[in-house]
Amino acid sequence: MEYTKNFDIRNGRNLTMLVDFYEFTMGNGYLKSNAQNTIAYFDMFFRRIPDNGGYCIMAGVQQVIEYLSNLKFSEDDIEYLRCKHMFSKKFLDYLRNFEFCCDVWAIPEGNPVFPNEPLITVRGPAIQAQLVETMILLTINHQTLIATKANRICSAAKGRPVMEFGSRRAQGYDGAIYGARAAVIGGCSSTACTISEEMFGIPATGTMAHSWIQLFNNEYEAFKEWANVYPDNCILLVDTYNVLKSGLPNAIKIFKDVLIPNGHKPKGIRIDSGDITYLTKKCREILDEAGLPEVQIVISNSLDEFIISDVLSQGAQINSFGVGERLITAKSEPVFGGVYKLTAIEDKNGKIIPKIKISENEEKITNPGFKKIYRIFDKKDGKAIADLITLNDEIIDENQTLELFDPVFTWKKKRIKNFYAKELMVQIFDKGKLVYESPDVMDIKNFAKKETERMWPEVLRFENPHHYYVDLSQGLWELKQTLLRRYSSNYEE
Amino acid sequence: MEYTKNFDIRNGRNLTMLVDFYEFTMGNGYLKSNAQNTIAYFDMFFRRIPDNGGYCIMAGVQQVIEYLSNLKFSEDDIEYLRCKHMFSKKFLDYLRNFEFCCDVWAIPEGNPVFPNEPLITVRGPAIQAQLVETMILLTINHQTLIATKANRICSAAKGRPVMEFGSRRAQGYDGAIYGARAAVIGGCSSTACTISEEMFGIPATGTMAHSWIQLFNNEYEAFKEWANVYPDNCILLVDTYNVLKSGLPNAIKIFKDVLIPNGHKPKGIRIDSGDITYLTKKCREILDEAGLPEVQIVISNSLDEFIISDVLSQGAQINSFGVGERLITAKSEPVFGGVYKLTAIEDKNGKIIPKIKISENEEKITNPGFKKIYRIFDKKDGKAIADLITLNDEIIDENQTLELFDPVFTWKKKRIKNFYAKELMVQIFDKGKLVYESPDVMDIKNFAKKETERMWPEVLRFENPHHYYVDLSQGLWELKQTLLRRYSSNYEE
Repeated sequence: MEYTKNFDIRNGRNLTMLVDFYEFTMGNGYLKSNAQNTIAYFDMFFRRIPDNGGYCIMAGVQQVIEYLSNLKFSEDDIEYLRCKHMFSKKFLDYLRNFEFCCDVWAIPEGNPVFPNEPLITVRGPAIQAQLVETMILLTINHQTLIATKANRICSAAKGRPVMEFGSRRAQGYDGAIYGARAAVIGGCSSTACTISEEMFGIPATGTMAHSWIQLFNNEYEAFKEWANVYPDNCILLVDTYNVLKSGLPNAIKIFKDVLIPNGHKPKGIRIDSGDITYLTKKCREILDEAGLPEVQIVISNSLDEFIISDVLSQGAQINSFGVGERLITAKSEPVFGGVYKLTAIEDKNGKIIPKIKISENEEKITNPGFKKIYRIFDKKDGKAIADLITLNDEIIDENQTLELFDPVFTWKKKRIKNFYAKELMVQIFDKGKLVYESPDVMDIKNFAKKETERMWPEVLRFENPHHYYVDLSQGLWELKQTLLRRYSSNYEE
Repeated sequence: MEYTKNFDIRNGRNLTMLVDFYEFTMGNGYLKSNAQNTIAYFDMFFRRIPDNGGYCIMAGVQQVIEYLSNLKFSEDDIEYLRCKHMFSKKFLDYLRNFEFCCDVWAIPEGNPVFPNEPLITVRGPAIQAQLVETMILLTINHQTLIATKANRICSAAKGRPVMEFGSRRAQGYDGAIYGARAAVIGGCSSTACTISEEMFGIPATGTMAHSWIQLFNNEYEAFKEWANVYPDNCILLVDTYNVLKSGLPNAIKIFKDVLIPNGHKPKGIRIDSGDITYLTKKCREILDEAGLPEVQIVISNSLDEFIISDVLSQGAQINSFGVGERLITAKSEPVFGGVYKLTAIEDKNGKIIPKIKISENEEKITNPGFKKIYRIFDKKDGKAIADLITLNDEIIDENQTLELFDPVFTWKKKRIKNFYAKELMVQIFDKGKLVYESPDVMDIKNFAKKETERMWPEVLRFENPHHYYVDLSQGLWELKQTLLRRYSSNYEE
């Protein structure tokens, strides 16, 4: 389409103040304690894949970039904070003259991602690296959740187009707008959310609601009016009264008496209620008998990956799906539990001092230090074998055999030859300067498809998938053990 | 606080284009079919209470008002639509000169609301009343969902303050911003979402994250620095390493050696992990023995109404709660299924022609016509007895006995004397002109509390509650039956 995406006019909001209040109380505290310029490293990562799935699809980096590029406090913001009577003048002045100066690395959008690996790493003065926690988490948590859910749903649809239809049930306006973006990254072919096409250039589509049918004297008349307006794109909603006794017969009449004689190709019917398997089989049969095999059947009634998979396995005759609330809210598990944890600080000489967060819950223990992630691919078939988290200065020699081991059950080992290692994170900010250009959403979507296909099907299965390996390098594993021993000796029973 | 709420600067976005694409294809169709000025009535209502609860709390009307007050299409929007090559010049010109002229009625925010009663009614030209569907649904669905969930959680907390902490896990930016607003309407005492205080004047609060503790050499030093910055508002996070062996002893040292000797009152401790019942009982005991009975215990670890209720029943010693992801996403049931249905049109003479939407699913059948809702209160104790939906021109005579009957099991009857009837909906737009002023959020919160207390406790129970009566007047019931008979005779087996 010839229209140029118009993102900026829609995104005039400055979201700098969308921040948990404790980031301010801590920021003010860092200044007073003279710790504001301590260089801190934070990782954003997650611990569990929603829906017990085997993978997630990274999304939201572009919006993190927009947020970090526009960090600034207005005089109104400063005045608001002053009125809280909790913050020093020094802190308010710091905010007034705020200039973002952190380094930021991120895994590009569209990549399959896994628990415990950093999706984003921020390095910079504690006062700044802390402040950006809320928006980084909010952005990546939301979009990764929806992209992942969409990917599962599209995978269940087995190549049939899936349209995102959920705006009206989204959790807030951005839930709809960015949810549509993430859904397309995850694999959806289009969205019903018009503003998302205007902003991101992802295709917006839509036909009619039941109210169109009800507004006219009867269904036939309503269909006829529609065919008159959209003769070459005529998809008729057939379930307002009764699919088989009214909707479908009327639609066939329109197709055969109105569209075809005038040289138009009938497009399809949409069913939004009732038993999908029964109705679509029946409709397909009747349409074929009527000599209309090209008429497509679109389904849109409380769908998700499980229902889609189920009805297709029963032989339901469906050409495309419209998926609403269960996608746009990731209904079956609506929270992506990403966290943002301190992993290291630097001493006065720039030496990295790794930090660990202990927990009674062992899977909540963090991976310390400044790190990199390599994705290890098999040279023969190009499939991903494992991700390897290393310390930042470690280099992987592709000419040597690589030994991977499970970070908990360390006797589980795997020796790998004939591989190549791709670094997953890229730098997106260098001392506050943007050094990365986000691809177009449609390019991210294609990239996600390509990268997902490099995973073993066992990992992609949406029930009871194979657990993809995310291992630690020997160096990182040893560092972690050292820190754990040091802390545990302090708190022995 | 002296600061004046500053809503407008934050809400510069024009959300007119946040609309399902089919509203445009239909709008264009109405124009071409010359049906654009047919006066249509739409009801927004819902069919099921989330979490099998007994009531919902209405929220989001203020944002519907803002949206409807600012409906306009920019030249960029028109150009975008033109590039789709689906819309007539006449339609694009209509949008270019769009002036909202509908009548709108709504149940004010904070009211308990129930299935099948209209929360919002829109009356106006079909082309306009159709267009506003997406944003009305999105807004009311989201905020009512969160206000309702918050009300359940606050009810479980039995008067203890509940702080909304969920921004980082919200579904998009507005999920956090308006979610915080709705949470406060539902009963939360404050939010961690700073921008929501700036926009709505709801209190924002927060203390420290684990990273504050980790950034310093040890926990004691980190606490000491904090006490130094916030001596009169010192709540210490005690679970970074070990609550009972490290966090609590260090906190007590700070309270007794640093704060009290310098004339400051210690405020509290916060626990964010571990077994809540065990830890809070133990901490309370130790704090009391240390002569610190005034030190409060704040809990914030994956809470919802069920966990809160459970741990309190086990004697957990908790003064206030911070609730995150399970509130801000309504995790247990993250969709509020409000719908927007055509209920009537007017003929050329302004006569109302009621419309009904049939469904194989009997609870999906709509209530036809232009309607009113009365809430019937007992004059003696002021408690709500039932809601009665009537046709718009029906009047209830409080001096007569009122007979209510179940709309399905019509033999279930109730005769009521000594009551008064309050009309629930108020007009908010009169031919496109705003005629209603939204109260402040904190006033809505108080109103919600008062109105909820007028419900029987049996209705408010959050498991297996009493089903509050929503009945139809004799006139409305008969109209519905007539329409049902008319349609069913068309589709007999």
